[in-house]
Amino acid sequence: MSDSCIPRATLGRLPMYLTYLQGLKVSDHTTISAAAIARGLNLGEVMVRKDLAAVSGSGRPKVGYVACELICDLQACLEQRSDTKAVLIGAGKLGRALLEFSGFEEYGIQIVAAFDCNDQVLRYSRTSKEILPMREFAKYCLEQQIRIGIITVGAGSAQQVADMMVDAGIRAIWNFAPFDLHLPSDVVLKQENLALSLAHLCNQLK
Amino acid sequence: MSDSCIPRATLGRLPMYLTYLQGLKVSDHTTISAAAIARGLNLGEVMVRKDLAAVSGSGRPKVGYVACELICDLQACLEQRSDTKAVLIGAGKLGRALLEFSGFEEYGIQIVAAFDCNDQVLRYSRTSKEILPMREFAKYCLEQQIRIGIITVGAGSAQQVADMMVDAGIRAIWNFAPFDLHLPSDVVLKQENLALSLAHLCNQLK
Repeated sequence: MSDSCIPRATLGRLPMYLTYLQGLKVSDHTTISAAAIARGLNLGEVMVRKDLAAVSGSGRPKVGYVACELICDLQACLEQRSDTKAVLIGAGKLGRALLEFSGFEEYGIQIVAAFDCNDQVLRYSRTSKEILPMREFAKYCLEQQIRIGIITVGAGSAQQVADMMVDAGIRAIWNFAPFDLHLPSDVVLKQENLALSLAHLCNQLK
Repeated sequence: MSDSCIPRATLGRLPMYLTYLQGLKVSDHTTISAAAIARGLNLGEVMVRKDLAAVSGSGRPKVGYVACELICDLQACLEQRSDTKAVLIGAGKLGRALLEFSGFEEYGIQIVAAFDCNDQVLRYSRTSKEILPMREFAKYCLEQQIRIGIITVGAGSAQQVADMMVDAGIRAIWNFAPFDLHLPSDVVLKQENLALSLAHLCNQLK
């Protein structure tokens, strides 16, 4: 079993396979084939076969998977990230919305804290998670061994914030600021551009 | 000039070209080539040539573009959507964050109102734009001729909300709910999955 860089589309379907298999309430030795799962979920068989092969090496020709083992492999693949902690810099409206968004848990990811340099934000935001002052950022990341950072500041501060993240040991950055970050080659970047997404949708309409 | 379905990547670079050309402070008849723009922005010449050809038919071989005309074409392409109005259903944290996000204006798009069925949200949210009760949704969309809808409700209500949008004349939907919407074939859908985006980034890190 290997989950090194599972394709995004596959990753997106794993929770669905897991829910489906758990719903079958199988006994210990029940086997199930990729074809049966594909039929059950009304998906293409080739795709399902590839998806499952990417997360589990336990499938056997003409037999399929022992359902319990496949469930374990899917859980391992999703839950091995259950202690994946991310932090966020920029606790404005978007930052706080992400901080409170519960959907990340399906993939075992937790945004554990947000940081901001605005005292007003620190004092008056009602969120269930900590919003901490920027001066505590580096110490927090090192102590908690944080490797994932989310940037929700404006374009003007994005590079400075990214540099602080890199210095604090962060190795993957999800950037919502409309700014082309310069990062060391060993840091993974995902650039999010919400405005462009909506513009592209509108463009398709014309 | 045609902007029918400009590629997303091209669309993403148009504001940059426009800012660059406006910064040159050219006189009425100054011409500029795609190659010069590419050099000025440190971009590949082939890409810039293609991008500009997608938005302006005024370029001439060996001469390039009359800068003012190119500026006009870029503005037309971005600003012709200046009266593009979108509405949003689901004024929770994410919905309100999008409602207040100013980045859409670069592409001439405005989220003009949000709708929610929760009286608490309607009464207590401090936003600069209207949050209206659901019962006013259809009338509002028809009167304002809204064609773009954004869904930021939970997965359980997403299909119902999408159906209401379609009935109200909306023809492009940006869906943030983790739910596979069924829509008429003439409705354009962009599915957003923030949890998957973060999970995929984490996955690349391992």
